[in-house]
Amino acid sequence: MSADSQPYPLLWERIASSLARQGMSQALGVRLLRAEPGCVELALAYSEKVTQQQRGFHGGATGMLADIAGGYAALTLAPEGLEVTTVEYKINFLAAFKDGELRATGKVVRAGKRITVASAEVLHVDAQGHTSPCALMQQTLTTVPASA
Amino acid sequence: MSADSQPYPLLWERIASSLARQGMSQALGVRLLRAEPGCVELALAYSEKVTQQQRGFHGGATGMLADIAGGYAALTLAPEGLEVTTVEYKINFLAAFKDGELRATGKVVRAGKRITVASAEVLHVDAQGHTSPCALMQQTLTTVPASA
Amino acid sequence: MSADSQPYPLLWERIASSLARQGMSQALGVRLLRAEPGCVELALAYSEKVTQQQRGFHGGATGMLADIAGGYAALTLAPEGLEVTTVEYKINFLAAFKDGELRATGKVVRAGKRITVASAEVLHVDAQGHTSPCALMQQTLTTVPASA
Amino acid sequence: MSADSQPYPLLWERIASSLARQGMSQALGVRLLRAEPGCVELALAYSEKVTQQQRGFHGGATGMLADIAGGYAALTLAPEGLEVTTVEYKINFLAAFKDGELRATGKVVRAGKRITVASAEVLHVDAQGHTSPCALMQQTLTTVPASA
Repeated sequence: MSADSQPYPLLWERIASSLARQGMSQALGVRLLRAEPGCVELALAYSEKVTQQQRGFHGGATGMLADIAGGYAALTLAPEGLEVTTVEYKINFLAAFKDGELRATGKVVRAGKRITVASAEVLHVDAQGHTSPCALMQQTLTTVPASA
Repeated sequence: MSADSQPYPLLWERIASSLARQGMSQALGVRLLRAEPGCVELALAYSEKVTQQQRGFHGGATGMLADIAGGYAALTLAPEGLEVTTVEYKINFLAAFKDGELRATGKVVRAGKRITVASAEVLHVDAQGHTSPCALMQQTLTTVPASA
Repeated sequence: MSADSQPYPLLWERIASSLARQGMSQALGVRLLRAEPGCVELALAYSEKVTQQQRGFHGGATGMLADIAGGYAALTLAPEGLEVTTVEYKINFLAAFKDGELRATGKVVRAGKRITVASAEVLHVDAQGHTSPCALMQQTLTTVPASA
Repeated sequence: MSADSQPYPLLWERIASSLARQGMSQALGVRLLRAEPGCVELALAYSEKVTQQQRGFHGGATGMLADIAGGYAALTLAPEGLEVTTVEYKINFLAAFKDGELRATGKVVRAGKRITVASAEVLHVDAQGHTSPCALMQQTLTTVPASA
């Protein structure tokens, strides 16, 4: 998807260019689906690279996707020149899946000058487009000056 | 390292063979350092595949490493024929690092019949062997029958 | 309020009678506002008994209210003869308040045979009825046989 | 106990006077046992005022005690003129108890300029002085200017 076709092209560009600089997201195949003020949606397709020992999506992949979605949701509300960094998060795993893709929607719960709280809901989408709850995350972030 | 040189060769073998079946751990380079009753230590070297947008270790990589360390610590105390699965975890990120490797030590806090609580401490080790705190995780797990 | 005037009188009765046996809830003044399948709402008025050192609502009171609301939400979906017990929770404090009352709405996110996940949103309500976000909680519970 | 008999009388005085201003701690009977740099220990005796519906210590009481212990541990390292406030915490309940007292030891994991991470271990002590694990908490705090 290009930034031009987006309802918030500058936000999309800001998030997409940051995501493109994440070696881990690139290695595992994280894609940006949506970037709006206070809300970011990401997708991660099932592949060998994201499995645990029982062939399901690895909790580490689910956690990473939720963490990024919440973090970028916070970034959409941060003043230019500031980055956000995750202080902590807590994630509950609701069900395991062995195919399709995960979609994480991060939302800002409260944006503060120093502390921002976000949540992320991770859904599984199967080949037929059927969605099921996968994980729920609650996260604390803080703003930091952007590195040069 | 081989299982034979370990103080707990059967535990080592159980954990090492499970880790080898995790596509994500293999893709990112997670290594087993220690497997004792109630305690497992893992390492993850810095590489392009585990970075975030500022070139530091990605929180998703740190979270994954802590989650696996705590989960395998729980597995060392689980009866044969049972697996453990993560119900939830919470992780605080203490500092960011751009080189060296991460080492996560998972420990069982309380092993129950249905619910096990574990914690994991993640340290950064630089090229000179100097260690610094990186993250702290607290985790809840439950036992499930091993899949065939 | 009486159980008779409720849309779910049996649920209301089950929750209200359990709440009445909680010494801490009685001592601090927790009131039941709503009991529906998968959702329970509680209130706690400001008083000297629930303050911290700066005269605001104590985080311990906010946490207790959220924990109870989530726990009772889980109880509304538990089979007769079973109780639910909190395995763990995580709470973010969003703002501090020095008057009025807190209202916590607990909701079941996923009800499982062994593990239930709930969330609770705590709002502050001032003397004019204006509401503001106060706290957000995410919680894991498990079922246990009811004690005689 | 008086401040004079303490190894850190100024710290003790700072924490004790803050605790004395907490209406909730006073109402429920929280006592200060220890105040050292980065570490605070508190006690709460079993009474009708801290019970849940099965007559055990209420999770809300356990959570409050852990939150205060971690918060005051952070306060021991905060510059004069600053207070600390809890951003969030996560607590696992390990076992339930119906008598004796709870003792929570809060410790600073990492003290930062803006963000401090603390943990608290809650033990149960029975009438014979036997201790058992009760709960484990991990907490994030931030500094705020002290109110006049």
